[in-house]
Amino acid sequence: MPLPFEHLTSAQQLSKEVVASVFAVADDMEKIWSSGKRSKLLEDKIIALLFYEPSSRTMLSFQAAVQGLSAGMELAHGRQNSSMAKGESIEDTIRMVARYSDLIVMRHPEAGSADKAASVSHVPFINAGDGANEHPTQCLLDLYTIQKEKGSLNGLHVAFACDPLQSRTIRSLALGLSQYDDIRFTFISPESLKASKDMLDVFDDRGVAYEETTELSAGIDADILYMNRLQEERFNDHKEFEKYRDQYVLTADMLKGKDTLIMDPLPRIDEIATDVDDLPNAVYFDQARNGVLVRMALMAMLLGKA
Amino acid sequence: MPLPFEHLTSAQQLSKEVVASVFAVADDMEKIWSSGKRSKLLEDKIIALLFYEPSSRTMLSFQAAVQGLSAGMELAHGRQNSSMAKGESIEDTIRMVARYSDLIVMRHPEAGSADKAASVSHVPFINAGDGANEHPTQCLLDLYTIQKEKGSLNGLHVAFACDPLQSRTIRSLALGLSQYDDIRFTFISPESLKASKDMLDVFDDRGVAYEETTELSAGIDADILYMNRLQEERFNDHKEFEKYRDQYVLTADMLKGKDTLIMDPLPRIDEIATDVDDLPNAVYFDQARNGVLVRMALMAMLLGKA
Amino acid sequence: MPLPFEHLTSAQQLSKEVVASVFAVADDMEKIWSSGKRSKLLEDKIIALLFYEPSSRTMLSFQAAVQGLSAGMELAHGRQNSSMAKGESIEDTIRMVARYSDLIVMRHPEAGSADKAASVSHVPFINAGDGANEHPTQCLLDLYTIQKEKGSLNGLHVAFACDPLQSRTIRSLALGLSQYDDIRFTFISPESLKASKDMLDVFDDRGVAYEETTELSAGIDADILYMNRLQEERFNDHKEFEKYRDQYVLTADMLKGKDTLIMDPLPRIDEIATDVDDLPNAVYFDQARNGVLVRMALMAMLLGKA
Repeated sequence: MPLPFEHLTSAQQLSKEVVASVFAVADDMEKIWSSGKRSKLLEDKIIALLFYEPSSRTMLSFQAAVQGLSAGMELAHGRQNSSMAKGESIEDTIRMVARYSDLIVMRHPEAGSADKAASVSHVPFINAGDGANEHPTQCLLDLYTIQKEKGSLNGLHVAFACDPLQSRTIRSLALGLSQYDDIRFTFISPESLKASKDMLDVFDDRGVAYEETTELSAGIDADILYMNRLQEERFNDHKEFEKYRDQYVLTADMLKGKDTLIMDPLPRIDEIATDVDDLPNAVYFDQARNGVLVRMALMAMLLGKA
Repeated sequence: MPLPFEHLTSAQQLSKEVVASVFAVADDMEKIWSSGKRSKLLEDKIIALLFYEPSSRTMLSFQAAVQGLSAGMELAHGRQNSSMAKGESIEDTIRMVARYSDLIVMRHPEAGSADKAASVSHVPFINAGDGANEHPTQCLLDLYTIQKEKGSLNGLHVAFACDPLQSRTIRSLALGLSQYDDIRFTFISPESLKASKDMLDVFDDRGVAYEETTELSAGIDADILYMNRLQEERFNDHKEFEKYRDQYVLTADMLKGKDTLIMDPLPRIDEIATDVDDLPNAVYFDQARNGVLVRMALMAMLLGKA
Repeated sequence: MPLPFEHLTSAQQLSKEVVASVFAVADDMEKIWSSGKRSKLLEDKIIALLFYEPSSRTMLSFQAAVQGLSAGMELAHGRQNSSMAKGESIEDTIRMVARYSDLIVMRHPEAGSADKAASVSHVPFINAGDGANEHPTQCLLDLYTIQKEKGSLNGLHVAFACDPLQSRTIRSLALGLSQYDDIRFTFISPESLKASKDMLDVFDDRGVAYEETTELSAGIDADILYMNRLQEERFNDHKEFEKYRDQYVLTADMLKGKDTLIMDPLPRIDEIATDVDDLPNAVYFDQARNGVLVRMALMAMLLGKA
């Protein structure tokens, strides 16, 4: 199925149909990747990666996806090296880069920058994170990881800790999962970081069950416990950040006898003790690999080559 | 025709014969690019891109050219990451990189750095901008854009605004065009930024007509109005820069009923209102694409592969 | 011969057998490189280059090696752009990147970081310099240069100037050479930068002859005089650095009638006058090229493709 959009800027574009069709292509990508080959699918394409905000994880994942498809890669990173530092608008940058490349991936610190970019790009555009706003390929890789580990996106109890208020990752994934049948959420957080009312309203509308709690132990018996570091860059007040960062720490001890799947978008700071890493529950490093596969699938599909 | 030089450091090397032969190859490159293919012409070559000064535009354009030719790419950017930060001379850097690559492209903040580099490089070298001094591939792409839009480089009236004194882009293009027949220039600028006498002397020598004015309206009826942002980095005094930046702003309104071609090397700050973008007059984003084509042509020719 | 290790973190892994087998493959690489072709040996592999410390020389050399083998390249440089800036451990970074790539090369300012990385990497890992600690591929390329120039690694008198105390390059190379037969060293330095006792103890154990002197002239009649800039970043006190930097400067005049091979890991600051560059004695720029060849060989061998 061809994708029903030219640009991916928001996780809200990830309908069940879109998700299913990306996964089908990602499975094909995995077969090629696992055979130790690089696909030649995009060997005639050139892909621009514009990273105007620090992000080694997402940047390297997209680089791997470009290389895995044998595409030509253009790379700009660091805002200080950009035309924007000279006062150029995002729109002008994209109009220019669209003359240089067949597809553009951009990460930018400003919320809304992805929509600005997509509005003027005449080549496919992928939002790789625009500030605290959206990061749809993260949502896609999280869903893909769950699908692979659980065999389905229906009938799941998913717990999220520990910043449902500010984490775009939690928000996107919870909203994405809420489309499926028989979903139940547990949001774990300090009182001041509880999920926003507008998100909970969506769940009410869709008839998705959820509970809110301050106790990490409430997530231990879920099918999936999705941990997330507090992102210091999202706090205005450093003290506020320090106050919360040690409050929720998952240890191997807490998971004894449990088969709860442990996910984390990484980087991990100290929200998961390293003794969890070797448990079969831990799939957070596999998420990284899955990210390459869904990004390969997405780029190939947007370029009509899948 | 093979190029009569091994290194391109100055727009003064761009004789009419050189320009014509690069354009012929650039036209071939466009055919390949437009067919949705990457050329394999340089698949056995490795090209080093050394960008020691912020420049996303030129850097991405050269990256696109390298990828469009299927060459291997080496990329260094940011001076703080360079050996030069440890006190290495430009000459030593180039002697080293010439052992690593088949062709070197360098941008460097220091005027004269390109000549230093070319003097020791035993592989072809392209100057991608050395401070306020030279940026010959910009000149080449501007000429190529004019040739494509106007069908000829002869018989043109070209107006330049608004910093003929300090803009290397204006200087190079005006000097390049002054080789052709029946050329006329209008230089638009505040009094303090009028074209330098040494440049005007060349035009006198060559019998090229020119006029100087402070009024932007004088450029509206030219064949081409070449706008250029004031480059803040060329001003020592920020107040001086602020004083001039709003003085010349081109709007769609001013172009009503005119077929004047509007060019700009970009980035555009506020010298052209965005309502000009959608007019058929505006070719500044096409300049970007033409830049990739002439750079592909130039690299292929310098490596004896065109 | 396959390499007896999966990761290269220390020059101590470079036994005579390892050195010989890498050289054999490097010779093959040179044949391909000299024929003007890029090898396709690693065209199905993706190699991650993580440079968290300024190093244009080593970074570009590894880029050249990746391109020379037609591998896909992932590039991260600048620590400020990394997940580590967000507090991620080296181990987590490597666990993640190992999901993205087939081989990892890392340079990092922290001594011991390479061992941390290798301990968790499930893909081959190469240390491209971990602070003042180890830089084994530099040692390998120095040995390769000597082998090519002298035809053997046995029976050599090698002089080192001018910081045997702090230079990891001198340390690694001297230790590497001390494995061979009939080796003699001369260490030239100010009193306060004399070679450390633990290194000299190794030579005593191995029966390697050495002498220590403050006079540069003592190195002029050696087979090889290995010069090394003082590395300002290794000094805590800038004055201390300034005091020594002009003390040892090699000039063409000093080499009249001599066939002493002059080596230098570069960048050269002022320890070798530029009039030495054109003498047949000077091989320091050839070292750069040899570096690409041994890195190509090493990567191909670690990936089982040589």
